[in-house]
Amino acid sequence: MANTIKKIGVLTSGGDAPGMNAAIRAVVRACSFYNVDCVGIYRGYQGLMEGDFEELNARSVRNIINKGGTFLKSARSMEFKTIEGRKKAYEQLTKNNIDALVVIGGDGTFTGGVYFSQEFDLPIVGIPATIDNDISGTDFTLGYDTALNTVVDAIDKIRDTASSHNRLFFIEVMGRDAGDIALNSGIGAGAEEILIPEEDEGVERMLESLRKSKMSGKLSSIIVVAEGEKSGKNIFQLAEYVEEHLEGYDIRVSVLGHIQRGGRPSCFDRVLASKLGVGAVEALLDGDSKVMIGLSHQHVVRVPLTVAINGEAKYDKELRRVADITSV
Amino acid sequence: MANTIKKIGVLTSGGDAPGMNAAIRAVVRACSFYNVDCVGIYRGYQGLMEGDFEELNARSVRNIINKGGTFLKSARSMEFKTIEGRKKAYEQLTKNNIDALVVIGGDGTFTGGVYFSQEFDLPIVGIPATIDNDISGTDFTLGYDTALNTVVDAIDKIRDTASSHNRLFFIEVMGRDAGDIALNSGIGAGAEEILIPEEDEGVERMLESLRKSKMSGKLSSIIVVAEGEKSGKNIFQLAEYVEEHLEGYDIRVSVLGHIQRGGRPSCFDRVLASKLGVGAVEALLDGDSKVMIGLSHQHVVRVPLTVAINGEAKYDKELRRVADITSV
Amino acid sequence: MANTIKKIGVLTSGGDAPGMNAAIRAVVRACSFYNVDCVGIYRGYQGLMEGDFEELNARSVRNIINKGGTFLKSARSMEFKTIEGRKKAYEQLTKNNIDALVVIGGDGTFTGGVYFSQEFDLPIVGIPATIDNDISGTDFTLGYDTALNTVVDAIDKIRDTASSHNRLFFIEVMGRDAGDIALNSGIGAGAEEILIPEEDEGVERMLESLRKSKMSGKLSSIIVVAEGEKSGKNIFQLAEYVEEHLEGYDIRVSVLGHIQRGGRPSCFDRVLASKLGVGAVEALLDGDSKVMIGLSHQHVVRVPLTVAINGEAKYDKELRRVADITSV
Amino acid sequence: MANTIKKIGVLTSGGDAPGMNAAIRAVVRACSFYNVDCVGIYRGYQGLMEGDFEELNARSVRNIINKGGTFLKSARSMEFKTIEGRKKAYEQLTKNNIDALVVIGGDGTFTGGVYFSQEFDLPIVGIPATIDNDISGTDFTLGYDTALNTVVDAIDKIRDTASSHNRLFFIEVMGRDAGDIALNSGIGAGAEEILIPEEDEGVERMLESLRKSKMSGKLSSIIVVAEGEKSGKNIFQLAEYVEEHLEGYDIRVSVLGHIQRGGRPSCFDRVLASKLGVGAVEALLDGDSKVMIGLSHQHVVRVPLTVAINGEAKYDKELRRVADITSV
Repeated sequence: MANTIKKIGVLTSGGDAPGMNAAIRAVVRACSFYNVDCVGIYRGYQGLMEGDFEELNARSVRNIINKGGTFLKSARSMEFKTIEGRKKAYEQLTKNNIDALVVIGGDGTFTGGVYFSQEFDLPIVGIPATIDNDISGTDFTLGYDTALNTVVDAIDKIRDTASSHNRLFFIEVMGRDAGDIALNSGIGAGAEEILIPEEDEGVERMLESLRKSKMSGKLSSIIVVAEGEKSGKNIFQLAEYVEEHLEGYDIRVSVLGHIQRGGRPSCFDRVLASKLGVGAVEALLDGDSKVMIGLSHQHVVRVPLTVAINGEAKYDKELRRVADITSV
Repeated sequence: MANTIKKIGVLTSGGDAPGMNAAIRAVVRACSFYNVDCVGIYRGYQGLMEGDFEELNARSVRNIINKGGTFLKSARSMEFKTIEGRKKAYEQLTKNNIDALVVIGGDGTFTGGVYFSQEFDLPIVGIPATIDNDISGTDFTLGYDTALNTVVDAIDKIRDTASSHNRLFFIEVMGRDAGDIALNSGIGAGAEEILIPEEDEGVERMLESLRKSKMSGKLSSIIVVAEGEKSGKNIFQLAEYVEEHLEGYDIRVSVLGHIQRGGRPSCFDRVLASKLGVGAVEALLDGDSKVMIGLSHQHVVRVPLTVAINGEAKYDKELRRVADITSV
Repeated sequence: MANTIKKIGVLTSGGDAPGMNAAIRAVVRACSFYNVDCVGIYRGYQGLMEGDFEELNARSVRNIINKGGTFLKSARSMEFKTIEGRKKAYEQLTKNNIDALVVIGGDGTFTGGVYFSQEFDLPIVGIPATIDNDISGTDFTLGYDTALNTVVDAIDKIRDTASSHNRLFFIEVMGRDAGDIALNSGIGAGAEEILIPEEDEGVERMLESLRKSKMSGKLSSIIVVAEGEKSGKNIFQLAEYVEEHLEGYDIRVSVLGHIQRGGRPSCFDRVLASKLGVGAVEALLDGDSKVMIGLSHQHVVRVPLTVAINGEAKYDKELRRVADITSV
Repeated sequence: MANTIKKIGVLTSGGDAPGMNAAIRAVVRACSFYNVDCVGIYRGYQGLMEGDFEELNARSVRNIINKGGTFLKSARSMEFKTIEGRKKAYEQLTKNNIDALVVIGGDGTFTGGVYFSQEFDLPIVGIPATIDNDISGTDFTLGYDTALNTVVDAIDKIRDTASSHNRLFFIEVMGRDAGDIALNSGIGAGAEEILIPEEDEGVERMLESLRKSKMSGKLSSIIVVAEGEKSGKNIFQLAEYVEEHLEGYDIRVSVLGHIQRGGRPSCFDRVLASKLGVGAVEALLDGDSKVMIGLSHQHVVRVPLTVAINGEAKYDKELRRVADITSV
């Protein structure tokens, strides 16, 4: 019940994502709105074990809604994966009278949260934040929309050079297991071909497509490659292979790398963060636990964390079809 | 049936919106994919009546997916509102063997399309494009996501000055009948108060909220006002009223204006445009007509144009609640 | 002599400008480098009189180089214009053992600084920061380059609409006395005509130019108008006048307003701020006073504050010529 | 003399740079202003030899001032390095009655131009365009200012992650022989250390600096490395070396790559391009040849192409000093 929770802790964990600050802000403001105390926990589960805490009020989170990264900082913690580590963490919570946690992060963050919540009967609610959009039970994760804009912005720049020099560019984007970034940014940037982890159509298909394009009059092309792509070749080997088997293309490789994680969040991510942050505090006050606050068709939903972790990927096959048609 | 349509015309009409070019591109590419001819019609219904046409192929639309505005240009046409005008338009179509139309625009564009389609038994499919997001039957219209980012980007800049000088800014954003831009950009920009056309809570509520904020330690504030807001005062009068009734605030007004319509489309709008453009051609080839291609929970849907035009606004009351909580 | 100065105060005053934070950072870091204490003074001369101070060290200014506005805040102070006000300010300085001041701002800031320095024999050095670029003795003021980019970015967006609808846009940019913003952003945005405060060529010239453009095949046009322009008409009246005297143009007005002051500083402004901030501390340590640190042909120079204030404007007539040629 | 030149050809060659389109536009418009014909030559010297020409008038270059890359495209040509190649090129010129050339590019472009001009007594004027800013005789080359903004924008994003995770990032930026990009973007992005081709201070200095920073409380750091840096290690080896010799840092590498060449030009680059383009046509009409049009202290100057090519680099040592002071 709502009245048993008097103080909520909030932390960010795993890889940082744009919108984390906006989510922290919403959690803190919702606590203030419902007259619950709020404590910021630095450096994720690591800081939780070390008691690296700070009381936060509505004014503590001013002017952060538009900042990338997370001011609470994030870290990966090996120790929290042990029962001893989690015991230490629980002691810090009881010592500080923290009754419940909001954990902001991805897969690993939620897994740790489920264990911790079960072992110590602690109410925990998760907010999905990862640019990869690879969490089940929510249409979108925090940071994903911003990352898409960062990627198309970067590819737009590279396209200037590609079309000035009639070149073929291989561009690697993030996505170890999920092709969402590659597929959406590929369509958005007008890519010729898109290679994703969820399907391996073989390098031959790509060669065939490039040959056709060339004949149809395309002078420059962009191939977007997700880092977890399954051809068995890395992006430099892919480029080399194409260079060997296809004449008349001047080929370059660009690995976008870490710029994809940062930057001011898009309006979409800020609004999403605000909805999810409010939703997380309200779920805790409703007596819910071990749920993720997600978005389904614009509505805030509560999904068991176990579903969020174990659900299968939501790869949108329709997008592949759209990509094939719009790149003729 | 698909095989009766051999040539499709495409036009943009009404106010321009980011993503229109991407939608034209998708229509043209889908025509090419399905071996249907495609004709670009300049300046909307006006150009349709004048026969201002150009054949387009897959290569004609290269390097436009990332451009704002519409290369086919747009115009409002009085003449097309008359039966004589529409007759002229139909003659141009038959003279050029155009069997069907894709019309990209908003309310007015669809209304004209419905009349035209009924009178001459011409297959017409609509694509919703307007930054206001005020079309029923689709979760999002083209240009809306881009406009939100443009607005928060602008307010972020103004906030620099607001917080440097401890000022209160009234900022007018677009939205004559719909508060979607104001509500979302207001949350995204961390606004103190948001005034929208769909509800008039009175100026007193705003004064009360500003008084509370002041006491809680807020030094600067942003008020986002939709242009169609219902207080009966324009934004300059609103600012004056607050200045008179609230001490200690240095007040400024900024009308964002036309920058909100332009700019490179966001990734979201480019992908949306690609889906809708492909969907429009496929609907025509399926024998559909008088439908709008919309997006519902990430899926492309076909909605009768009459529903799109006459449906009631989708003002999201949950957002107002989130705004109130996150602005404490 | 260098060794007499042990503690330096730094403040920002007047209208805020992008790069002020970067300049404060450079002043603080340079103090740290030379083992001098540094004190941040909030809200300009107003905070100086009130003793609103905070000790700053090298770590206090982390992560601010890329933020718009000024974290020390700015304010205009009437009281400091009186001898009593300045006396109060001096007492605060002596009470806090502050030996010298770096004042960051424009004209008014420097004027106050000159009086204060003379009356109390206090070493004061100025850093020019104003988006208007209207200070003599320096090639560039802080914030000017960023403002130019903000303006062309905004006009690029408006141009999307202008060329989609074949419209003529009147766009008002900042610049009460100086046409630098209008002239440079006008050339950069490809404007048809540019109206500046330094010359009044009459509205007829503009009409003539628009007529010629129309005949040469221009379908849409941008007119950039500095707010201090001298035609005697405001921008809305100008637009109306043209509408009455020129047929066939659909005319719109946009006042860019406060977005021009904010935003993340450009690389140029950050480097300039770093150079000037270091230069200011070094000037004080060299025993200099009542000088502005400016930039002349990429070199840091020291210019008497009286020259900075009283010098005549540097309106670049060559730019007008380039504008006329490139807008044919 | 002016009256002997009736038709001017313009081409872009070498690596593309933002602002090339704006420069072409200015050349075309200036030709139109002075009633001289203008011919666009595609793909640099290669297209010159092949006669890949197109007549351009004032309207041909509308809406390109804000586009990255070069619509005339660029290419490197081996054949033009031979006297046979240049002969072919000259024949194309005479066949098309082209009397003079404006060549836009860098070092290699100018070298080719000098040979060609001498051998065939053809008036040639160069416009410096390269993001590296490594041309003598001009304060700035086209594209350099834009590239600096692209780089600091990218590093700002990476800094979000760096400071969220307390990491040390090595970031490689362009600059084979010139450290201008590294030095300016390094200062602008608040880098801890900057490694440039012009000086090799040894890896030990960097280690020492990092150790000091750590002790002074810095938790995250950015090291900017020019690609032509002289330590003898590539950026991945540098990172590894530091990882081995410095404890407690979580290290990452990011190679910014091709995004640095593209993108919409900054206002500075657009104005610079406009000045230089007009200046180039006026130089030819004045009877000048084998000169580069450069910028010196805001003024357009004419510099012998041989000076531009052979001059020594303008590495600004003062910047290194500012970098050292502002990174304490």
